[in-house]
Amino acid sequence: MLNVNAQRIEDRITGMAQFGRNDKGHGYRMAFTQGDVEGHAWFVDLMKKAGLETTIDQAGNIIGKRKGKKPTLKPIAFGSHIDMVPDGGNYDGTLGSIAALEVIEVLNENKVVTDHPLEVIIFADEEGSMIGSKALSGKITPEILNQTSHSGLTISEGVKVLGGDPDTIQNARRKRGDIHTFLELHIEQGGVLEKEGLQIGVVEGIVGIEHWEVTLDGFANHAGTTPMSLRQDAMLSASKLIIAVNEVIRGTEGSQVGTIGKINAYPGAYNVIPGKVTLGLEMRDLSPEKIERLFAEIEKQAIAIAEETKTKISFVRQPSVAKAALTDKGLQQIIHTSAQKLGLSTKFMPSGAGHDSQNMAMITPVAMIFVPSIGGISHSFKEFTKTEDMANGANVLLQAILAADKG
Amino acid sequence: MLNVNAQRIEDRITGMAQFGRNDKGHGYRMAFTQGDVEGHAWFVDLMKKAGLETTIDQAGNIIGKRKGKKPTLKPIAFGSHIDMVPDGGNYDGTLGSIAALEVIEVLNENKVVTDHPLEVIIFADEEGSMIGSKALSGKITPEILNQTSHSGLTISEGVKVLGGDPDTIQNARRKRGDIHTFLELHIEQGGVLEKEGLQIGVVEGIVGIEHWEVTLDGFANHAGTTPMSLRQDAMLSASKLIIAVNEVIRGTEGSQVGTIGKINAYPGAYNVIPGKVTLGLEMRDLSPEKIERLFAEIEKQAIAIAEETKTKISFVRQPSVAKAALTDKGLQQIIHTSAQKLGLSTKFMPSGAGHDSQNMAMITPVAMIFVPSIGGISHSFKEFTKTEDMANGANVLLQAILAADKG
Repeated sequence: MLNVNAQRIEDRITGMAQFGRNDKGHGYRMAFTQGDVEGHAWFVDLMKKAGLETTIDQAGNIIGKRKGKKPTLKPIAFGSHIDMVPDGGNYDGTLGSIAALEVIEVLNENKVVTDHPLEVIIFADEEGSMIGSKALSGKITPEILNQTSHSGLTISEGVKVLGGDPDTIQNARRKRGDIHTFLELHIEQGGVLEKEGLQIGVVEGIVGIEHWEVTLDGFANHAGTTPMSLRQDAMLSASKLIIAVNEVIRGTEGSQVGTIGKINAYPGAYNVIPGKVTLGLEMRDLSPEKIERLFAEIEKQAIAIAEETKTKISFVRQPSVAKAALTDKGLQQIIHTSAQKLGLSTKFMPSGAGHDSQNMAMITPVAMIFVPSIGGISHSFKEFTKTEDMANGANVLLQAILAADKG
Repeated sequence: MLNVNAQRIEDRITGMAQFGRNDKGHGYRMAFTQGDVEGHAWFVDLMKKAGLETTIDQAGNIIGKRKGKKPTLKPIAFGSHIDMVPDGGNYDGTLGSIAALEVIEVLNENKVVTDHPLEVIIFADEEGSMIGSKALSGKITPEILNQTSHSGLTISEGVKVLGGDPDTIQNARRKRGDIHTFLELHIEQGGVLEKEGLQIGVVEGIVGIEHWEVTLDGFANHAGTTPMSLRQDAMLSASKLIIAVNEVIRGTEGSQVGTIGKINAYPGAYNVIPGKVTLGLEMRDLSPEKIERLFAEIEKQAIAIAEETKTKISFVRQPSVAKAALTDKGLQQIIHTSAQKLGLSTKFMPSGAGHDSQNMAMITPVAMIFVPSIGGISHSFKEFTKTEDMANGANVLLQAILAADKG
């Protein structure tokens, strides 16, 4: 059986990690920054050395093509991204990119030519705007191009820096049927696989995300002169609601998550009972129906809390952040079987984080492979995945591509 | 029995309310602003017309003297302040100032001369720095003078604007024994008297205030990829602590209050589990021992919450905000008896808010009279006290002064 070169993967992770590093050793390879541009150039060079016909599309994606035996077949595509969040880690996106190239290297070394053409895609700006995969799936709007990225440049300016062309970015679009399949290897970014001692996650889909702005209205009053019994304390009300959200989410089987990540209290002084508190509520699940059912339960609890605390609680749903994107059932089975053949344990699981695959799912069947993140830490310089786990993931990717090719 | 003129009090409340008003009718007569200066000038004029020998001391306090029959006796002093918080109300401080002048008017009209000299004091900048009463009690430091006030001026600059002299402000100091007694009428600023249908509050003291900065350390992580069971959510921990504080404070008899008025969550985004939350905890009571006992109980609960939520909770006590200041027992009885003679109901109660009287308590016996605040609302343009209640308070002040004079 073909086997990836674990040391080469590890060396290339280290190689990419040099770009966008500050003098304290932390990584700031955000999209369109100098580090991102240098990382792209380094990676393009490796892709060309591996014999890929490498170009930059109008969105700034790196596209590397390898011919198949049957040129009329549509390409099997795979890849990820190399940009990072501020102070991010060395594995998020980078592993999937390097593993995609590793598949090509192993096929080259073993002189294997697939029936389908192969295409390595390194997406532009995954962490900020997902501009690359949005362009491929035809979802670009002028608003997106005008947004400012972490680099300080607009997305439009950033795309140019990567060698794309915002004026003709619509031409980067691939139609449904243009790509046979898209596969992405990624670190889990959560702690489930490690905690359960499993090696490969078979991703069932990328969760949908809903946001609500919650406002709790009480009555701002003097913290010295207002007896406890006469207060309408929006902070107390908010605390009860935060606990209720936690209990509702945890009270049902499943992998749904609910988070209160932000809070503001007004006026926000030691000596004033908060008259108003705002919260950001996020819920994620593969099933939109389940999100709605849990939200209805939270609303019900909020009514009781509002009455008990003499406050008013209102929820304003924000523009939908992400629709759930399911992966292809057939490809899930291919990944599961490939892992089994390699003697690797698997778990079918959702992806709680967003990925370029969710955009690709709109134009082609997609699948994702997860490998363990130590401590479940991600979007942090502490992010870490073991060499062995990276190699396992890359081997599953390789076998899944070969299986899909014969499919 | 002598009786104050309720209509004159009401008219002067309306008169003072014209100063520092914006075009929406809200009041911004913060210390040292144009409105404050104009209000001072208007009030000085009224004091002079009432025959008071009126001067501005080095701290910008207005001092109005009326001779007594026995010039060797020390003066009975009374008064309050006319500055307000931003968007404050028409009664806080102003009532006590106008009622002090009303006492003089009634004595004049009835040709009553007390044995003791009388002294009306309108303190400079009560709401910001309490500069006026601090100067009288010898508590001025260079740090206080360098602080910036709501007016944008430093306290030092502000004192000059009011006609004081920051360079010789130490000379405003009165030694213990220089003043026979200090009395202050004030709106309650809480809702206790109104709620209980009572007319006069006999203030037992001004509560001590303690502040703690509370830090809750969890672990910031991805809100999508981190299962509920693996979270160390500082927001959840904070919510449990806020509820525990409320329960501890309410779990014991008494008028102690505890407030969480401010909160910050880090990093503070919909999609990140907060790794850190900071809170501001305030506790107030007449008894420092009780504050310590309740705080110890909160600390105990925090240990359990920290363990349950896998977070760390730490408390950092802030420099003591205010020491409790007890009023004089004898003067409390004089106020109580004066109210009874006027047929008014009373309640012995703490002042949850700070007042110039707490500084005066360091150099002379003090007492305070409270009248009801409708809805317990204060530091708000909605602040309101009925004319009848203002007159009741002024009559009690008048009778208490006369009793203290004979006492």
